[in-house]
Amino acid sequence: MDILTVLNLGDLAQAFSKMGMFPVFDLAYYIVSIVYLKYEPGSVEVSRRSPVASWLCAMLYCFGSYILADIMLGSSPVDYFQHNSHILLASAVWYLIFYCPLNLFYKCVTFLPIKLVLVALKEVVRTRKIAAGVHHAHHAYHHGFFIMVIVGYVKGSGVALMSNFEQLLRGVWRPETNEILSMSFPTKASLYGAILFTMQEAHWLPVSKSILILGFTLFMATSKVVMTARHSHGSPFALIESWICHLLFGSPLGVGEEDHHHPPPAVAPSSPLKTKEELSEGARKRKVKKAE
Amino acid sequence: MDILTVLNLGDLAQAFSKMGMFPVFDLAYYIVSIVYLKYEPGSVEVSRRSPVASWLCAMLYCFGSYILADIMLGSSPVDYFQHNSHILLASAVWYLIFYCPLNLFYKCVTFLPIKLVLVALKEVVRTRKIAAGVHHAHHAYHHGFFIMVIVGYVKGSGVALMSNFEQLLRGVWRPETNEILSMSFPTKASLYGAILFTMQEAHWLPVSKSILILGFTLFMATSKVVMTARHSHGSPFALIESWICHLLFGSPLGVGEEDHHHPPPAVAPSSPLKTKEELSEGARKRKVKKAE
Amino acid sequence: MDILTVLNLGDLAQAFSKMGMFPVFDLAYYIVSIVYLKYEPGSVEVSRRSPVASWLCAMLYCFGSYILADIMLGSSPVDYFQHNSHILLASAVWYLIFYCPLNLFYKCVTFLPIKLVLVALKEVVRTRKIAAGVHHAHHAYHHGFFIMVIVGYVKGSGVALMSNFEQLLRGVWRPETNEILSMSFPTKASLYGAILFTMQEAHWLPVSKSILILGFTLFMATSKVVMTARHSHGSPFALIESWICHLLFGSPLGVGEEDHHHPPPAVAPSSPLKTKEELSEGARKRKVKKAE
Repeated sequence: MDILTVLNLGDLAQAFSKMGMFPVFDLAYYIVSIVYLKYEPGSVEVSRRSPVASWLCAMLYCFGSYILADIMLGSSPVDYFQHNSHILLASAVWYLIFYCPLNLFYKCVTFLPIKLVLVALKEVVRTRKIAAGVHHAHHAYHHGFFIMVIVGYVKGSGVALMSNFEQLLRGVWRPETNEILSMSFPTKASLYGAILFTMQEAHWLPVSKSILILGFTLFMATSKVVMTARHSHGSPFALIESWICHLLFGSPLGVGEEDHHHPPPAVAPSSPLKTKEELSEGARKRKVKKAE
Repeated sequence: MDILTVLNLGDLAQAFSKMGMFPVFDLAYYIVSIVYLKYEPGSVEVSRRSPVASWLCAMLYCFGSYILADIMLGSSPVDYFQHNSHILLASAVWYLIFYCPLNLFYKCVTFLPIKLVLVALKEVVRTRKIAAGVHHAHHAYHHGFFIMVIVGYVKGSGVALMSNFEQLLRGVWRPETNEILSMSFPTKASLYGAILFTMQEAHWLPVSKSILILGFTLFMATSKVVMTARHSHGSPFALIESWICHLLFGSPLGVGEEDHHHPPPAVAPSSPLKTKEELSEGARKRKVKKAE
Repeated sequence: MDILTVLNLGDLAQAFSKMGMFPVFDLAYYIVSIVYLKYEPGSVEVSRRSPVASWLCAMLYCFGSYILADIMLGSSPVDYFQHNSHILLASAVWYLIFYCPLNLFYKCVTFLPIKLVLVALKEVVRTRKIAAGVHHAHHAYHHGFFIMVIVGYVKGSGVALMSNFEQLLRGVWRPETNEILSMSFPTKASLYGAILFTMQEAHWLPVSKSILILGFTLFMATSKVVMTARHSHGSPFALIESWICHLLFGSPLGVGEEDHHHPPPAVAPSSPLKTKEELSEGARKRKVKKAE
């Protein structure tokens, strides 16, 4: 009975890790990504004033992870743009989200139950990208463990890691922060995921890759769905990170956690320090509505 | 009689599209590009204070399109610098324009009749670069239509697309605008040209490449010569763009045109929003003279 | 007797140019580089707040030259990260310099006699990097003299050339200056070194490469040790540069020298214009102490 369960889980994981991402999962990824772009203050005006800049930002949101990974591995940064169907699908999503009459498409996909499903699907793609990035780097550098982590990390984080330059494209410049200086939950999770997948690739983890993909996907999807549903931006890693940083790097204890859950009034106006995926849903929607 | 005309036109276009660009046309390209660099406020001081930075900017102005295209296709960004004679010629032009005694060379090449010829020759090079860029990308990605447009576009626009970083090299930082957010006429024309050449390469246009090169060159040279002669910066695309943007992207009607021809007083001080090739000649010359 | 001396010098130079850099010399390079990172205002706070950003900056300080050279030659920018032992050694140095209890390691390595030895060893590595960079570029582009100079230059200058972006990673943005606009002594020397090694590679210098390496190393080590010991930032090139710039580029005579040795009071607050390696040691140490 026990063996059967294990077999079934292995088979399930195997099937899950072979499942194609295009078009359903990729579509969800594009929708959620471009919705996050629309949340950005000023992005609606840019879409009116310069559709080319807006389209380019949307492409960075959808394909930033491929662009960064290709740069890291010395390939052409526009290599992924040879997949015309992906680009066209993402462009259609961009058009619908920004220019659909009555803002209908945007209202549909940000309706909470639908959004939760899309967010969960996006995390499936993210996990697969991390695994693929680590595998790709392993192929190019057999013992380049740092390179594997870096490529997996950029594949998981995508546009967040180049947010300063993506904002610059829209005429916004916030040099005082960046995604590495104050990591959001998805970026952190991508880093930890990239480390896990690298350890798996180096045979330091006693687990098959398909199981790891399944487990990490479940963790990411659950976390993001709960965070989106509760409009929260606390990280599940906060407590353990706070202790490890205190022990290893002498960071003041609990600052990571406190900073997220009970921000002191003095920190309140520092909204640019909050990363894009961390803003509470309410604030975002109000901003977007005002902009239209 | 009619067939003969067509034959002759075809032959002419064929011969024109085979004509070598080095050194006459390239020389004109370097001269006009570096004159535009000298128009930039502060560039004369930089040339006195740090000749290396000034030389590097001049190289970006002359070879920015090659650098960007090489980056896009994953080659070495300094690949073009292996052509020593081109670099030496551009360096000589840079030296003469910035350091010639009595500013003699600069005064000669900016004498309007000479400048109009040089501007026309520059557009010949630009068109050939767009065609070569699209062809090169087609060679690397047979069905990568987006890549073809992107590479043709960066080949035509050159340094304009990286103007923020070129300015940074001279210690100037204007994050509130960039060439994609507010495209100048040559950048826009390069985009449309890249789309046309991509369509030709994909056999969606019933016209030969040499005819397209001839036609586009004539259009670009005429437009730029007229614009330079009239010190105008209105775009011939303004009306049709304004309508298309209104229909497709809900942009307010006529804003593109109005913005260029009758700027409201409140927008007047926002000169950094004007792109470098769009400043009226008079204003530029005054600035350059003052700086010397 | 005379021939023997020459033979011995040739042999010595040959042996010196074949000497392995790892781990002793590389260790010195990492230590001095990361000490310079700690001198940077704000870097200690970053190391407490975001260890990942601090580690990444440290890696840029240690391996920036490899990253830039790889970018210039179109390889993967993280190519050097396949050398796990180098990365681990640099990471250990970073950890000890930033997080060692009682700041013990930092105090040891910045104790002047020890620091002078480390600084000398660092210059040995720098010279070897320039030579290797020029050689590497020569291998890729046989007659690309400009490319050889560029690659040798970035190999010698390393992180200095991307200091604007390295600072951005720490949330600091100083667009008004950069290493090309106001070159520090090591950057200038790297440029001149790259030109010398390129001339040697092109057989325009009647001297063997090993002799050139030995001579340039001695010059660099002596200069940097004297400058570090005297807390000076005057360049040995100042006088000759000032004359050449005056003759060739019409720069006002002696401005380079005066600017460094007797800064007028009005320029005093412009400290961001000073490059990181040029700050007086006293000022640096005070800053670092305050930050802890």
